[in-house]
Amino acid sequence: MNPGDRVRVERGSVENEGVLMPSTTADHLVVKLPGGYNVGIDRGDAAVEVLERDVYDVEGTDDGEGGSTIEFDDDLPTVSLISTGGTIASTVDYRTGAVTAQFDAEDVLRAVPDLAGRANYRGRVVANILSENMTPAVWQDLAEAVHEEIEAGADGVVVMHGTDTMQYTASALAFMLDTPVPVVFTGSQRSADRPSSDNVMNAVCAVEAATSDRAEVLVCMHESSSDDVCALHRATRVRKNHTSRRDAFETVGAKPIGRVDYDTETVSFRRDGPERGETDLDLSPALETSVELLKFTPGMNPAALDHLDDAAGVVVEGTGLGHVAMDWIDRIEELVADGTVVAMTSQCLEGRVCDRVYDTGRDLLDAGVVEAGDTLPETATAKLMWTLANRDDPAAAMGESLVGELQPRSVPWT
Amino acid sequence: MNPGDRVRVERGSVENEGVLMPSTTADHLVVKLPGGYNVGIDRGDAAVEVLERDVYDVEGTDDGEGGSTIEFDDDLPTVSLISTGGTIASTVDYRTGAVTAQFDAEDVLRAVPDLAGRANYRGRVVANILSENMTPAVWQDLAEAVHEEIEAGADGVVVMHGTDTMQYTASALAFMLDTPVPVVFTGSQRSADRPSSDNVMNAVCAVEAATSDRAEVLVCMHESSSDDVCALHRATRVRKNHTSRRDAFETVGAKPIGRVDYDTETVSFRRDGPERGETDLDLSPALETSVELLKFTPGMNPAALDHLDDAAGVVVEGTGLGHVAMDWIDRIEELVADGTVVAMTSQCLEGRVCDRVYDTGRDLLDAGVVEAGDTLPETATAKLMWTLANRDDPAAAMGESLVGELQPRSVPWT
Repeated sequence: MNPGDRVRVERGSVENEGVLMPSTTADHLVVKLPGGYNVGIDRGDAAVEVLERDVYDVEGTDDGEGGSTIEFDDDLPTVSLISTGGTIASTVDYRTGAVTAQFDAEDVLRAVPDLAGRANYRGRVVANILSENMTPAVWQDLAEAVHEEIEAGADGVVVMHGTDTMQYTASALAFMLDTPVPVVFTGSQRSADRPSSDNVMNAVCAVEAATSDRAEVLVCMHESSSDDVCALHRATRVRKNHTSRRDAFETVGAKPIGRVDYDTETVSFRRDGPERGETDLDLSPALETSVELLKFTPGMNPAALDHLDDAAGVVVEGTGLGHVAMDWIDRIEELVADGTVVAMTSQCLEGRVCDRVYDTGRDLLDAGVVEAGDTLPETATAKLMWTLANRDDPAAAMGESLVGELQPRSVPWT
Repeated sequence: MNPGDRVRVERGSVENEGVLMPSTTADHLVVKLPGGYNVGIDRGDAAVEVLERDVYDVEGTDDGEGGSTIEFDDDLPTVSLISTGGTIASTVDYRTGAVTAQFDAEDVLRAVPDLAGRANYRGRVVANILSENMTPAVWQDLAEAVHEEIEAGADGVVVMHGTDTMQYTASALAFMLDTPVPVVFTGSQRSADRPSSDNVMNAVCAVEAATSDRAEVLVCMHESSSDDVCALHRATRVRKNHTSRRDAFETVGAKPIGRVDYDTETVSFRRDGPERGETDLDLSPALETSVELLKFTPGMNPAALDHLDDAAGVVVEGTGLGHVAMDWIDRIEELVADGTVVAMTSQCLEGRVCDRVYDTGRDLLDAGVVEAGDTLPETATAKLMWTLANRDDPAAAMGESLVGELQPRSVPWT
């Protein structure tokens, strides 16, 4: 068997059919499955059957289009693909099973052939972790990498990220980075060895969005369960609202800001936003990580606040319009008096905190709590880390919209 | 001015128009606003203008229907209205401004005249608190009151409750109470002095549901922003998903279990459930309240678990399919080893926890975490309090559906 052959590999009860890749090592076979995803298979006990020889030009040298697709094309924009890990990144990373500092256009196109002809690519690995292990420190590494890529000339950036905490990372980047080009997060809800995988369409649509004229941090994921359109979400308004659906990501309190039609390769936007080139590139990566998100439940002992005595910030997920039990209010007042910024959000998720309606709310405002409007609790957590490190009056900033995270009451995003 | 007069009351910048009620005291005027809601107004600085005399028969003695509507009608079912406080209850309670142990049919009909002719009523006040101040101890008082009312012959129970934590209380009651009659929670998202108030329709629909043949704990609230239909939600699957909309309550992961058409007074159900009389009345009110809900965020220090060392139970709102950072797993394993039940839910809210897919999840299962399936985090918190006090194997019970809170994978509730 040789790279480029179509093979069937049986190992234990698992059977895979696909094209053998050149990155095969002594220990592992790498097989490109239908859909462009590579799977690594331990050679031990693996039975390989060659189904057809030379079905795929793994070197990209005689693709009938006059040479390698990998040569730099002056007519195409340059997109930097940054990998942080997760299901989508394994499309590229799984090939070697190792974290490498760089990957090149050849690696990208070998993994997702559909990306060919849309851009010149360069690749970069910032991390290779499942996104539940993401930390504010990695957010900072990522923001710096994105900044460097744009500074070095990238016309757009695609960040491949696990879906579990994508909304937190994308939010954090939106606060840290002033960008003159699109920065588009994408991921995959279904691993690519499943026929229903969303990785190829999401990657392709993310590249289309990254070459569009909208210069902000976006999240690009399936708009519905069909393979036809990706939604573009503003980073600070998006939420993973389902554990497993491909269209799990939803803009909260508004329609998605835009969409990418997969077939026609059309990127369109429902609302205005910063245009390409409008904003000067800048990075403010400092974060105060001593911030905690606390969800209030009935009867919860105010002692739950005791371990937050030294916290720089606390985001409370209150009930309804932004409430907690009366016996929490003195404790919160103490925290605020001791210098902790306490921001109120709602566990309803949709709608706006408004603490001027009921007594509890007014008491909270008197205690020094700042209302985060309709900012999502997860976004508020990332924002508070950022405002504490970058703003003279971080509490006041929590009541303002910095990058579209807090929708003004008078301009509904419908 | 006399009770029954239509008056305009100005106090400061606030002006109210309505009917003066007989419960007016030396300190307060009580005015019934259009829609049936009573508002109490401090007499100090209040200017009253009588607009029309004797527009409303406040005594209910000469209503032209042959006497008081309050006489017991053998042909009607008897509904017990239990008040716990909140915006809806103030319809009844505000009249006196005080907590009274009982209120009678006359009080009910004076507050919401539309309820006349639908049932015989008796009323009972369990608490008079905004629902953010609700506690498991009040859940128990309420469960005992509901149990007593049914034992005393109520054909249905309507619980008036603040909307902020209604889903927690309704869930708790669903676990505590085996009921042969409907127990219907309702509330109000808009105070009744607003033209858009939902209190009358919600109360009327709740009474219709309470006289239906479905014997389980339900939540009855506006189905849409129109005043035509209330949705009926299973107590353990409902969530307040908006801070202010009248249709804020939604069944998660399914359509609402039923609906009440306000105009035609028709109650209908989409899915089967326990019929009236099918279940024997029983109460298991014990709760282990040493349970906390913890929402995981990226980079969150495992020290956030330290104050839970002595907790009987912890519900984790993990990411995605039910994940936390790797550095939490040892800490969770210690908690479980020391006897704390740790149940996993998802902050996605929609969809199902499944910790068999990724390494993190498998490690969590090895650490002794129990998966709560698609149980909502808020419901799981109430459930864990109940299972710890009532089940020999509370952890195992968190993986089973007791009262419809955990939807079996094979029977989607569409």
